[in-house]
Amino acid sequence: MRKVQVAVLGATGMIGQRFVQLLEGHPYFEIGGLYASERSEGKTLGEVLRVKGVRFQDETLAMRIEALEPKAIARRCRLAFSGLPTEVAKDAEAALADAGVAVFSNAASHRMRADVPLLIPEVNPDHLELARSQATFPQGGFIVTNANCSTTGLAVPLKAVHAAFGLRACYVSTYQAVSGAGYPGVPSLDILGNVVPFIRNEEEKMEEEIHKMLGTYKGGRVEPAAFDMVASCARVPVLDGHLESVVLRLGREAAAAEVVEALETFRPEPQALGLPTAPLRPIIVRGEEDRPQPIADALAGEPERARGMAVSVGRVRERKGYIKLWVLSHNTLRGGAGGSVLNAELAKAKGLL
Amino acid sequence: MRKVQVAVLGATGMIGQRFVQLLEGHPYFEIGGLYASERSEGKTLGEVLRVKGVRFQDETLAMRIEALEPKAIARRCRLAFSGLPTEVAKDAEAALADAGVAVFSNAASHRMRADVPLLIPEVNPDHLELARSQATFPQGGFIVTNANCSTTGLAVPLKAVHAAFGLRACYVSTYQAVSGAGYPGVPSLDILGNVVPFIRNEEEKMEEEIHKMLGTYKGGRVEPAAFDMVASCARVPVLDGHLESVVLRLGREAAAAEVVEALETFRPEPQALGLPTAPLRPIIVRGEEDRPQPIADALAGEPERARGMAVSVGRVRERKGYIKLWVLSHNTLRGGAGGSVLNAELAKAKGLL
Amino acid sequence: MRKVQVAVLGATGMIGQRFVQLLEGHPYFEIGGLYASERSEGKTLGEVLRVKGVRFQDETLAMRIEALEPKAIARRCRLAFSGLPTEVAKDAEAALADAGVAVFSNAASHRMRADVPLLIPEVNPDHLELARSQATFPQGGFIVTNANCSTTGLAVPLKAVHAAFGLRACYVSTYQAVSGAGYPGVPSLDILGNVVPFIRNEEEKMEEEIHKMLGTYKGGRVEPAAFDMVASCARVPVLDGHLESVVLRLGREAAAAEVVEALETFRPEPQALGLPTAPLRPIIVRGEEDRPQPIADALAGEPERARGMAVSVGRVRERKGYIKLWVLSHNTLRGGAGGSVLNAELAKAKGLL
Amino acid sequence: MRKVQVAVLGATGMIGQRFVQLLEGHPYFEIGGLYASERSEGKTLGEVLRVKGVRFQDETLAMRIEALEPKAIARRCRLAFSGLPTEVAKDAEAALADAGVAVFSNAASHRMRADVPLLIPEVNPDHLELARSQATFPQGGFIVTNANCSTTGLAVPLKAVHAAFGLRACYVSTYQAVSGAGYPGVPSLDILGNVVPFIRNEEEKMEEEIHKMLGTYKGGRVEPAAFDMVASCARVPVLDGHLESVVLRLGREAAAAEVVEALETFRPEPQALGLPTAPLRPIIVRGEEDRPQPIADALAGEPERARGMAVSVGRVRERKGYIKLWVLSHNTLRGGAGGSVLNAELAKAKGLL
Repeated sequence: MRKVQVAVLGATGMIGQRFVQLLEGHPYFEIGGLYASERSEGKTLGEVLRVKGVRFQDETLAMRIEALEPKAIARRCRLAFSGLPTEVAKDAEAALADAGVAVFSNAASHRMRADVPLLIPEVNPDHLELARSQATFPQGGFIVTNANCSTTGLAVPLKAVHAAFGLRACYVSTYQAVSGAGYPGVPSLDILGNVVPFIRNEEEKMEEEIHKMLGTYKGGRVEPAAFDMVASCARVPVLDGHLESVVLRLGREAAAAEVVEALETFRPEPQALGLPTAPLRPIIVRGEEDRPQPIADALAGEPERARGMAVSVGRVRERKGYIKLWVLSHNTLRGGAGGSVLNAELAKAKGLL
Repeated sequence: MRKVQVAVLGATGMIGQRFVQLLEGHPYFEIGGLYASERSEGKTLGEVLRVKGVRFQDETLAMRIEALEPKAIARRCRLAFSGLPTEVAKDAEAALADAGVAVFSNAASHRMRADVPLLIPEVNPDHLELARSQATFPQGGFIVTNANCSTTGLAVPLKAVHAAFGLRACYVSTYQAVSGAGYPGVPSLDILGNVVPFIRNEEEKMEEEIHKMLGTYKGGRVEPAAFDMVASCARVPVLDGHLESVVLRLGREAAAAEVVEALETFRPEPQALGLPTAPLRPIIVRGEEDRPQPIADALAGEPERARGMAVSVGRVRERKGYIKLWVLSHNTLRGGAGGSVLNAELAKAKGLL
Repeated sequence: MRKVQVAVLGATGMIGQRFVQLLEGHPYFEIGGLYASERSEGKTLGEVLRVKGVRFQDETLAMRIEALEPKAIARRCRLAFSGLPTEVAKDAEAALADAGVAVFSNAASHRMRADVPLLIPEVNPDHLELARSQATFPQGGFIVTNANCSTTGLAVPLKAVHAAFGLRACYVSTYQAVSGAGYPGVPSLDILGNVVPFIRNEEEKMEEEIHKMLGTYKGGRVEPAAFDMVASCARVPVLDGHLESVVLRLGREAAAAEVVEALETFRPEPQALGLPTAPLRPIIVRGEEDRPQPIADALAGEPERARGMAVSVGRVRERKGYIKLWVLSHNTLRGGAGGSVLNAELAKAKGLL
Repeated sequence: MRKVQVAVLGATGMIGQRFVQLLEGHPYFEIGGLYASERSEGKTLGEVLRVKGVRFQDETLAMRIEALEPKAIARRCRLAFSGLPTEVAKDAEAALADAGVAVFSNAASHRMRADVPLLIPEVNPDHLELARSQATFPQGGFIVTNANCSTTGLAVPLKAVHAAFGLRACYVSTYQAVSGAGYPGVPSLDILGNVVPFIRNEEEKMEEEIHKMLGTYKGGRVEPAAFDMVASCARVPVLDGHLESVVLRLGREAAAAEVVEALETFRPEPQALGLPTAPLRPIIVRGEEDRPQPIADALAGEPERARGMAVSVGRVRERKGYIKLWVLSHNTLRGGAGGSVLNAELAKAKGLL
């Protein structure tokens, strides 16, 4: 079977390079081209490499960045993974969809559009149907977005809990890694030995996206879920892995052990379908008293291809009618490039590609 | 006026050395002796110095550590500041009180005793009266404790809010500095580039102490306050300064601006009394979008003697019936040695010494 | 005595703001204006503050940044402290000197000009005479530069050693703080939990400047010193304070104790003159086995006004004909703004202002 | 072929656990038992795990620690890998050798014994013959040690340079990771945002070991190499990977390009023999201007089994008769457990096992 040729947009950035990492040796997809702004045109990937400690094949490092030209891309690639910055993504992704390309985006620009699936395959695979309602579909292409990096890690266990017990409120405080801000991103003078209790637009995204994702798809539209969602976001001096402190008020009272069981037995569609980038266990519940931790658990997930795709949960405990727990996920894999690759795998499995 | 001779217990530890720092040149108190376990007996303070970047006078650094012997201490000192580890503190502090010493402790051992004031002068100065109910009072001495370091930073703004609007629930997640674990404390392998979502007994202390401190003193006892309190505690790679993400459900709905006003106009007793270690403004509300931050704000507080004693609050904002805000305070000054020194100043002002 | 009005150039940067810090309450100088590029024109200092954990007076924070216009500056200020980036400094500083302003610069642009003193008052105060040879002097102004931040910390003890024993070779490896790269400077993704063994042009500056500074002023020119100088420079995850590992081959063999004595008894001109920003002891030799360290010693220096101006030396030891030692100095105070302020104080004492 | 049963000594420590990691699926060796002090007896490896972010098989994590009893070990294991602390290692390793076990040790205790090979297979494979001269050989066992972690990374490129050009002097300053101090090791209060310019005995080890390793084996003994070696050692806030700034004075002058060629064409015995843990390229010369860096290069080495075993060299440059370069190697793999595993593989290839 010939592999689908895919474009990587924003290949000079952190997310773009994570796409490249995940696409090396991918069973369905093959990199057809690397694209970025004109400033980087002609440089090799090796010359603009940002992601450290990841091994790329020599031929991948030798690929040259091309300027982002939607029609030229459409001639070569059926699909595009977008790690573009938000301000560029909006128009570029729309133009690509017009030109017939299936766009799987990490950018926030189109996430809240009523006809765009804000998709996490473990959470709301049925929302993918929304793509069929887009104006450009099927002659042209379509846009599917992943969720914000900190929303994603939370949404997976929240879905399991929501399904099992219902949900009245979720209070979350984040401990977010610097790679979430891209490169050059956070200045070292701001974060060494420090915590910055502010990430622009992040709390708004978390508070907005979660209701759409946990919402019900019916009659061609998504009815948002209804529960209190209060998010506070901070940046910590960690390279990769967003940790989140979560307090829940469930729809019905449940013991911590019941919640653990609901999390551990959660087996959603990507795992049932055996998608290549889906981790065997989407949620790993840690039994230790001090886990999950970024440097220990950010890359959780089996098999090799799904490293960084599992969400780790730990310290599930009760407190007078509340459930407290900690969630950790890799922000540029599970919460970034990996999420979109999994979205594309689901789309392929469902016949949209 | 002759200064009160005071003992510093646990002078080889982080809190003990912060006591020493605050007592240099103190207008009421004078160091009568430095005490620690027998292991350090005879060493000079300079030889066991843990606190970095603080200037001590040469004569202070030359003082020798003595073994902790209650009766000998009582002969020399009217008052003791205790930075002892919890397991040692319980008996040693009781023995000192028996021997006639007024003990101002940073240890947790006696905090929840019904007859011991768990005291923050800005929060519950009237609770100091409990000291008079202790069996050893007045022939002997008494014990007054400060609160847990992360509880203290929270309690001050919570008091202002509680007084103004009432309180139905408080959800707090902490970002705690490593100095809170003492020395050697947190191994660098555990915390460099990492977050550890667990601090032993910390959540329990926060959830328990706050109700006692915000409680009502009446008829010789404290009636605990009643509101939901849910705490999640984590250690971050920061040297000094505990940051806390706080979500509140007030007794009556209030706009963020009203909350800010309540915080900024809060003028409790230590400020009215002009206690030497009381900051002019006990709560500093930051207007910037990304403050408070540990490296910028941990040492907030005027005048010089009160550096590290002000609590910084920032990003006060509303979210559908909730108030969100961030709190920062210096964990070994405001939340440690400074808190106990202020307690002793209050006791002196109230005639207990 | 009316204070000299001074301009601070580059007031939005790290060095510029250290100038402001040092000029608050300065006995000779008074800030006449804050200058930066047009982009920041009209903003207050408070709005562009980069330096964290330093207290500024409210009226200083309220000062507005003005666009850098040499003639306008010259009308108001007799003197300018320049924290401009190198590429801007060259022309702007020359224009200011033409317009009659005495420029004390932290930029590298004019350092190696034969008629410009590359000045550290403790090292080569006689080189200041070079300023009189500049074309613009005396009708116009003149330019005096400080040295590179990592060269400065090294030059002070090297001068003491050079004077006492002569010098055949100096091998130095640096551990440099991120504040040396300004703001935003080093991206956190590059330095968290990492070391970057490269700082552009830094080794070249160290290898070049040291010979000029330790050179002999005679007959209106400087004869460079002659010894092997080999520098290797790296950035480490430290906020402030450049640490340097130094290996010396002296002109004549000397025991470590002799070197320590030469360092401790070094009493150069600024201390003899009692310049306000000169530390009482220019070199502090630490006796501990593990000092100097950035977080403990970067702010060394007495009195209060000279904090961060003393150079700390430690672990002076012999190894088969070599002397090994460690040097630490504050890179934006001693090695930046403080150095230039001290230069201006020397110029005033010598009648150049 | 039945695998050799091996004991891992010190299995609760960082090096011990790296041994376990490398022995999982090893083609020659199989873990016969995990040993440590009595304090840990009976605990599973999972319960005492220190190394973070490494995947162990479930059955390995379930293995129980046994108390270190030489005769019992000798009955089960032909070979022991020792990650014991120095003070314990001396007697325990000697007792094991007496009991017939081939001990491959990471401890310093026996390194400088005239009859013990201080072995790096890429550097001095012929020194292994020394093992045959030990009193216990062949009836009993023998002891082979690896070198100090910071010496190892340096010795490999130094050997290549020494062989090609001769060597007159080596000046080295280290930037060492905290994992080198074991667990709990360096307190976070000492190293967060800091550099500690002292590691006990480290400079002495580097200055002593290098001459033995680069020495000539002849007539049953090692004649040490003769060149000036001056080492300065510091700890930096990095998890894994020792970086070293190296200045060389070669036996004959050579251009940087010649040195690079000597490094890149270096193909020593382990690579010729195809030992399983030998990296295909023992020295990787980086061409970028800012490499090697710990977070990017510590795990260099192909194939998968040799990750962390290659030494990275960068920024090879000339400076007036000197060669400057930077060296990086993984301190607990190449400079610790991996070094000893490679030593054992060489011993097997040479018929000593």
